[in-house]
Amino acid sequence: MVDLVRELKETAKATRNTIDRLLKVPNGMEKRVVEAMRYSVLAGGKALRPFMVLESAKLFDVEQERALRVAAALEMVHCYSLIHDDLPAMDNDDMRRGQPTCHKQFDEATAILAGDGLLTRAFGVISSDECLFEPQIRCKLIHRLAKAAGMTGMIGGQMMDILAETEEEMKLPDVIRLQELKTGCLFSFACESGAVMGKGSLEQQQKLRDYARHFGLAFQIADDILDVEGDANVVGKAVRKDLDAHKATFISLLGLEKAKEQARLLSQQAVDSLAGFDGRADNLRELARYIVDRKS
Amino acid sequence: MVDLVRELKETAKATRNTIDRLLKVPNGMEKRVVEAMRYSVLAGGKALRPFMVLESAKLFDVEQERALRVAAALEMVHCYSLIHDDLPAMDNDDMRRGQPTCHKQFDEATAILAGDGLLTRAFGVISSDECLFEPQIRCKLIHRLAKAAGMTGMIGGQMMDILAETEEEMKLPDVIRLQELKTGCLFSFACESGAVMGKGSLEQQQKLRDYARHFGLAFQIADDILDVEGDANVVGKAVRKDLDAHKATFISLLGLEKAKEQARLLSQQAVDSLAGFDGRADNLRELARYIVDRKS
Repeated sequence: MVDLVRELKETAKATRNTIDRLLKVPNGMEKRVVEAMRYSVLAGGKALRPFMVLESAKLFDVEQERALRVAAALEMVHCYSLIHDDLPAMDNDDMRRGQPTCHKQFDEATAILAGDGLLTRAFGVISSDECLFEPQIRCKLIHRLAKAAGMTGMIGGQMMDILAETEEEMKLPDVIRLQELKTGCLFSFACESGAVMGKGSLEQQQKLRDYARHFGLAFQIADDILDVEGDANVVGKAVRKDLDAHKATFISLLGLEKAKEQARLLSQQAVDSLAGFDGRADNLRELARYIVDRKS
Repeated sequence: MVDLVRELKETAKATRNTIDRLLKVPNGMEKRVVEAMRYSVLAGGKALRPFMVLESAKLFDVEQERALRVAAALEMVHCYSLIHDDLPAMDNDDMRRGQPTCHKQFDEATAILAGDGLLTRAFGVISSDECLFEPQIRCKLIHRLAKAAGMTGMIGGQMMDILAETEEEMKLPDVIRLQELKTGCLFSFACESGAVMGKGSLEQQQKLRDYARHFGLAFQIADDILDVEGDANVVGKAVRKDLDAHKATFISLLGLEKAKEQARLLSQQAVDSLAGFDGRADNLRELARYIVDRKS
């Protein structure tokens, strides 16, 4: 576990270095939006998705240096979604990753543009000739990322999440579907990206998606548990928000103990999904165990 | 001119039909965001950018059917920028294309997501194997679109525009640069896209970008003139907003008559940029003349 935490930190650092190079601050007045983008995307975070990109790439002997660009692009997409999600019209959050949210530090208009800028840049980064994969693979990565992040993926999940707060009564299958769209799709992209970059078989891609699906739900349940049991100073953002909003979560639907049990089960299922991969998948296996025990 | 208006309408219709096919409404709760995307992007509009894509494609004998997908993607990007630009935190507009803006018809959160969804879908559309260009060309289109729409393009221009209202005193070169980023970059992409799809020479690409740059500034001056002289019912959005906001525009800086003269000059320069292209460029030439005389 100590090694995993160290490797996560190293991935976070390598991803930040790559992003730093990809987001040069221009001289003109427009530099403000780039500063806002950098403020949010370089702020830290666990770098789970970049880690999954690099680890799945390792399974297919794709060099880390090449995969890092894809990891950086994915982290930009993840970060854009956080910036927009934090806006007053959405979740209205003041803190993220232990610092004021983008619209608090800058302003709402700049935060909207910063999110737009990160999303746009992500596609620019993968499509570039400096992304050292053949064009067919770059197109496949872009297409899958757009699907995972789009209206029938992450954005669709965000939409469900907003409606869940105001309109609809959510049952367990609804909450599962919501989370699979909202966070699961990006995890799936992260895990299968290695197989796309390294031309893995369809069966291998499916195993990685299965891993990601179980992982994603375990992650979300753990997130819900942190919202109930966590310390805002450790978690880096406000807690007990879902409880206060009377939002249907895995905990409100299952109860705390059952939710914990379910998270452990899903974590094990994630590990089981990787049967057939050799020791190079050990970090992903470890990650699935780690995720349900984390404190932030 | 009558023919041009008819062809613009036909392009608008063909683009809408393509977009209609590309934005299928899902069954789940997330359908709301897709409905909001469709509400805005299928609402009409002049389809100038799709027209430029198809006309520049024609110069290189690229079939309209293939170019339409790129035109549709570009229109999605343009429309996303309008949705976000209209938000209360940005320009706070109530009307667009003769109907309530997206956040007025739906709500702010849905409008933010609808914009995000259109931007994301645009890249999905071009990267897809159903986009019948070889992967290298698709990557080039995506890379240029991301640059044109991104932090050193359209988003940078939006950032400048926001700062111009609150902080900085803008002189003529600043306003020109602002407009070149905010609207010029997407026009440039539209015009050069044909050369990318049809593998035109670097010189041809440069001519098309020169056309777009002159066209874009002429378009913007005409827009400023409409803001002063136009009728909101014909224009389809609020007018006299810039005057009320004491915003630096081509008119506040040049005066109305000089601005009109400048627009005509730029329109002629746009036409001149196309020297060397044959009669297939006549629609683009006509468009440059039309744009300074339009009423909406």
